[in-house]
Amino acid sequence: MIFKQQWTGYRIENGIRGNGFPARVPGNIQYDYAVAHDFADVMYADGCRQFEALENDTWEYRARLQFTAKGGERVHFFSHGIDYKYDILLNGKTLLSREGVFCAVDLDLTEHLTGEDELCVRIHPHPKRIGADYGRSEADHSCKPPVCYGWDWNPRLLISGMWQDAYIETRGADYIGECEVRYQFNADRTRADVTVDCPDGCTITLSDADGNVVCRGTEKQFSIVAPHLWWCNGQGVPYLYTWTVANATQSRTGKVGFRTVRLVRNEGAGDPEAFPKSRYAPPFTLELNGRRVFMKGTNWVNPDIFWGNVTDGRYERLIALAKDANMNIFRMWGGAGPAKRSFYDMCDAAGLLVWQEFMLGCNDYPDDPHYLAVLEEEATFIIRALRSHACLALWCGGNELFNGWSGMTDQSLPLRLLNSLCYTLDPAHPFLMTSPLMGMGHGGYMFYDPSKEMDGDVFEVFGRSRYTAYTEFGIPSMASMEILEKIIPADERFPVTETPSWLLHHGLRAWKPQSHICPEVLRHYWGEPTSLEEMVEHTNWLQCVGYRVSFEEMRRQWPHCSAAINWCYNEPWYTAANCNILSYPETPKPAYYAVMDALRPVLFSARIPKFDWRAGERFTAGIWLLNDAPTAASGDVKVTLRIGERVIDLLDWKAAYAPANENTEGAQVCCILPDIPASEMTLCLTASDGMSSEYRLLYHPAEIQVKKVKLLNQ
Amino acid sequence: MIFKQQWTGYRIENGIRGNGFPARVPGNIQYDYAVAHDFADVMYADGCRQFEALENDTWEYRARLQFTAKGGERVHFFSHGIDYKYDILLNGKTLLSREGVFCAVDLDLTEHLTGEDELCVRIHPHPKRIGADYGRSEADHSCKPPVCYGWDWNPRLLISGMWQDAYIETRGADYIGECEVRYQFNADRTRADVTVDCPDGCTITLSDADGNVVCRGTEKQFSIVAPHLWWCNGQGVPYLYTWTVANATQSRTGKVGFRTVRLVRNEGAGDPEAFPKSRYAPPFTLELNGRRVFMKGTNWVNPDIFWGNVTDGRYERLIALAKDANMNIFRMWGGAGPAKRSFYDMCDAAGLLVWQEFMLGCNDYPDDPHYLAVLEEEATFIIRALRSHACLALWCGGNELFNGWSGMTDQSLPLRLLNSLCYTLDPAHPFLMTSPLMGMGHGGYMFYDPSKEMDGDVFEVFGRSRYTAYTEFGIPSMASMEILEKIIPADERFPVTETPSWLLHHGLRAWKPQSHICPEVLRHYWGEPTSLEEMVEHTNWLQCVGYRVSFEEMRRQWPHCSAAINWCYNEPWYTAANCNILSYPETPKPAYYAVMDALRPVLFSARIPKFDWRAGERFTAGIWLLNDAPTAASGDVKVTLRIGERVIDLLDWKAAYAPANENTEGAQVCCILPDIPASEMTLCLTASDGMSSEYRLLYHPAEIQVKKVKLLNQ
Repeated sequence: MIFKQQWTGYRIENGIRGNGFPARVPGNIQYDYAVAHDFADVMYADGCRQFEALENDTWEYRARLQFTAKGGERVHFFSHGIDYKYDILLNGKTLLSREGVFCAVDLDLTEHLTGEDELCVRIHPHPKRIGADYGRSEADHSCKPPVCYGWDWNPRLLISGMWQDAYIETRGADYIGECEVRYQFNADRTRADVTVDCPDGCTITLSDADGNVVCRGTEKQFSIVAPHLWWCNGQGVPYLYTWTVANATQSRTGKVGFRTVRLVRNEGAGDPEAFPKSRYAPPFTLELNGRRVFMKGTNWVNPDIFWGNVTDGRYERLIALAKDANMNIFRMWGGAGPAKRSFYDMCDAAGLLVWQEFMLGCNDYPDDPHYLAVLEEEATFIIRALRSHACLALWCGGNELFNGWSGMTDQSLPLRLLNSLCYTLDPAHPFLMTSPLMGMGHGGYMFYDPSKEMDGDVFEVFGRSRYTAYTEFGIPSMASMEILEKIIPADERFPVTETPSWLLHHGLRAWKPQSHICPEVLRHYWGEPTSLEEMVEHTNWLQCVGYRVSFEEMRRQWPHCSAAINWCYNEPWYTAANCNILSYPETPKPAYYAVMDALRPVLFSARIPKFDWRAGERFTAGIWLLNDAPTAASGDVKVTLRIGERVIDLLDWKAAYAPANENTEGAQVCCILPDIPASEMTLCLTASDGMSSEYRLLYHPAEIQVKKVKLLNQ
Repeated sequence: MIFKQQWTGYRIENGIRGNGFPARVPGNIQYDYAVAHDFADVMYADGCRQFEALENDTWEYRARLQFTAKGGERVHFFSHGIDYKYDILLNGKTLLSREGVFCAVDLDLTEHLTGEDELCVRIHPHPKRIGADYGRSEADHSCKPPVCYGWDWNPRLLISGMWQDAYIETRGADYIGECEVRYQFNADRTRADVTVDCPDGCTITLSDADGNVVCRGTEKQFSIVAPHLWWCNGQGVPYLYTWTVANATQSRTGKVGFRTVRLVRNEGAGDPEAFPKSRYAPPFTLELNGRRVFMKGTNWVNPDIFWGNVTDGRYERLIALAKDANMNIFRMWGGAGPAKRSFYDMCDAAGLLVWQEFMLGCNDYPDDPHYLAVLEEEATFIIRALRSHACLALWCGGNELFNGWSGMTDQSLPLRLLNSLCYTLDPAHPFLMTSPLMGMGHGGYMFYDPSKEMDGDVFEVFGRSRYTAYTEFGIPSMASMEILEKIIPADERFPVTETPSWLLHHGLRAWKPQSHICPEVLRHYWGEPTSLEEMVEHTNWLQCVGYRVSFEEMRRQWPHCSAAINWCYNEPWYTAANCNILSYPETPKPAYYAVMDALRPVLFSARIPKFDWRAGERFTAGIWLLNDAPTAASGDVKVTLRIGERVIDLLDWKAAYAPANENTEGAQVCCILPDIPASEMTLCLTASDGMSSEYRLLYHPAEIQVKKVKLLNQ
């Protein structure tokens, strides 16, 4: 039996406990405090800064319990996760002290209960390493996800508390705890040897997706012959079986999907040609059930600045949108770490693969015994909790740990520990120490950058890149006018300058001085912006066409390139500008639909050398039929270029054909661009069956002197 | 008490046991059989092929035991290692079956002894994977070192048996088994917290190198303040303390050296400049006691085709030669795996660091439960046995596993297992999955190769390379005439053609068609060889100057480059030609002295663009003062070029200075080469205090048309 408690929150400031206020579980204590104390809207202007005053406080959750154990029953306090350093006390006596975010708490209270008791969860101040710079490095000796200390799309907003569900559970002798269903396939996946971890004597039932019982008995080990395979979105049905473990009074149920997953070497990423020879690139082609699958997806970030407020409904909508956008994988970015358990159930059902990172991001985590002990406890729990999910594709230590801004290496003990734990607890899934690895690329994060760091627009950059995987790449756009009006006070809106609202909402100086709005890029293409509406329209144009050509170019590079995973999918609050394709909480930006288009299993696609064209130039484009479906594709396409009223016929490609999971390169089209009074042009690939594509490009007639502003970093 | 047995060997061929013959322990049963059956000299002509007939046989060692346990004593059979798949039987009853090479056997016989017993060690046939090609891949599902199946410097010669010491040991209640002394340093290495793993109640004594007792007591944990540090050759004294663990009747003793070792990032090997950004190179700069040390050394291979015949005396001479050659590290190449324990004691004493690889080499070892179980047992033993040695620098999974000819990846479970074991049992030492890794280079293995695979001579190749480490690079030379006369029958000697003796002794087709003699390279420089003596002289000239300039160039690339480790040091039998610098058993080739010269801590050195010069050309050379000593160096140097009788003065560099552990670049010298009737020239850097260097280069007068033969692979 499960009993939910009413909790009261308390703020302890400089050792003094304030008045109680209603505290929600799951939730975040700072949010509850803000609600109770009439904080102004956290999203508006500099509202997020109200929480800075709470950073160094201690908090308590208190609840009255009225339990006495009956007939050998045990009374447990159970929580799915408490953030971050906390004690659990009963009647003032400390029963448990620990730190972590993700590990569940299961505390037997039975011997301590009097029938009228007070349970207290005391939350210590957020970890802040002494001597660290203000920001993420304050968390570099702890397992606290660093994103809360401020990121270029997450305000500094330090939260803690009982962010996951918690309750009192009474357990009799018949109690069935957490069960786990694991399996091993034979070589050709025609037989799965299943092992169920559950109490002895239970009846175990396995049913197929139609509810037919496949297997029932009390044996914890049994074999399933020729199970339906679980496939990710686009490759087949994410087939799930239902298991039930039951005794006379209790039962547990869950899902299991049968599939194998490996990382194999990317085609063409072989030995260096010349002596002295280094190694070939690490394997990064996903093989699902023996089939090489192009990973197309996006980077998932925490969907809310208040993690405790994320509901299953939020997860559901975000996952459904990714599935609709033809994605097959989420990279669960390491700066935040894992989601709540229900997220993975939903990904199992939707066929969304999960690349799961641990909670390390852009820091140099130390070879320190205390840190390693906390990491081991957290990681062990996470691995055990998620390893049986069909959606799990791979484990990864964390984000960008082998880059200058982090400073870890292959020898760093936290990463060797994680590899060791994953090997020991879950050898069936690949493990990466970090992303990117050799051969993989992160960035850029602008549409256009003339500096050495990017040298061109995204058409040029990805057109000449040859990576085994693009696991972060971003193109920013501004939020809709509707959102901007919710977050930027009217008198700050235009012209866009470095006011607190624009700065705090990541419009300027989020990363580089001009990001994420990048007004210099707008000036480069269109001259000085004349209105906020125009800026919104232009940044979204760039993001739409930029993501479209980037995703399509990466797909063209298959099979050498095996992944296109943009930075990023969602956001935890209203940003003014960001590389995401869904605004908070789950509102598609125009680019969402461009990405959906670029990720159709089968489409005609154009390799276009650049975004910006002018009359008299020789326009070229390579026409391709892209196919990452498990069946062959064919179709006709007509290629035209539209400039103003003028339509130029470029190609009729009849009966184009692409084998299953292969692309076909067609002809190169070209023409000399005519001189027409227009400011844009569209390359149209017109086909049947939803395989058409359009690319909206910039065009300059000859007579107009292009206004070009020298970029800051030119 | 230890008792040695007299062993009799038996060959079991097609199930039939032959007559007994004397079998030595330690030794190899095939060698004993050959001695007893008058095999012809294994080294001469095709003598090694005599052993092919023994490959699929079973062997037995048998010994009479006359022991009965007295007064609670236990009687153990102990072996330091048996090769490879074996059973141990007493009076026909199997007491143990296992496979492996390196793991010790400790078998309590007490309960089985009658007072008159027969102990039998039965050796099963060598592992040969069904379906594998003839050669090393036959061993790719086992922990048998693949080198025995044939390598380009090791004949196919499959050995097995009791290759390490074995004996009967009687143990009373006072028995002190293997003890281990480990320690942890505080941050600045001023205090070592020592832990002794030994039976309770023993007296533990620690004495310094002068025999003074530093610490004595029965506590197994104690601290040593400001211990003398252990340093590798060239950096300081390899200071060792002696520990003794004793009770009333027994004692054990050993050495401990206090030092810390890490791999840190190579200077200048930073982030990629442009987006998309990959990672920086794995760390490969050795930091010993907080000091960055250039690794200069060599690849160690099994010193004998009959591993059981290797004596401590052989180890001693080989280690002393390496120390004399100014080396500080051995890479214990993975195709063979670890040496016997005494080797590591000697390296501790000599200050020779050890890069220890496991027994994986150039194969694709599988994710197979049986293989993983054997590997785990072998690796666990090896790690525990060697982790406390001061000489141990790092662990490595094996040789060239991430190259096309192997096929393993970062996801291969054997390598993830090894990382996990090393992390768990010995986190204080770095672990590499293999060599080379990203940024590190292996090869080339010729002096000159005009193909895409090398494109030039070693002067050119290493002059333009920029690797973080060169952990294999080889230049072949022929053995001395004295050795050649021992192995090549007179009628095969000259001209050198593809006769069995030249082929079996790796003179031709060892690796590429022309290796290791590379007659095409000799033709390229000197035209058709006129005698074997000339070939010996020319290949040794190339090897001497080639190794000299290669090692010196790699030292110049410090600190970006952190290691120069040539392929290879020694050889297990008489090869006709090889990249080694010591002929079997431990005879220096001329190149040994060239390497010794190139590795002096302080020397003047020249960066010379190429080997082959002609009259009228502009000769250039960059003059450097190299210093990898922990103290500053200075000196004067006079640079001259000698061609025949002519001496051309090029530079007087006065008071050249190089700080501790740093090189200094001096001037570039140049001259137009005069026309002189000579066939070679020497660049002389004449200095005081052993800092002089000379480079013997090829020279062609103008009037002589150079004979150039088109190379095979041009």
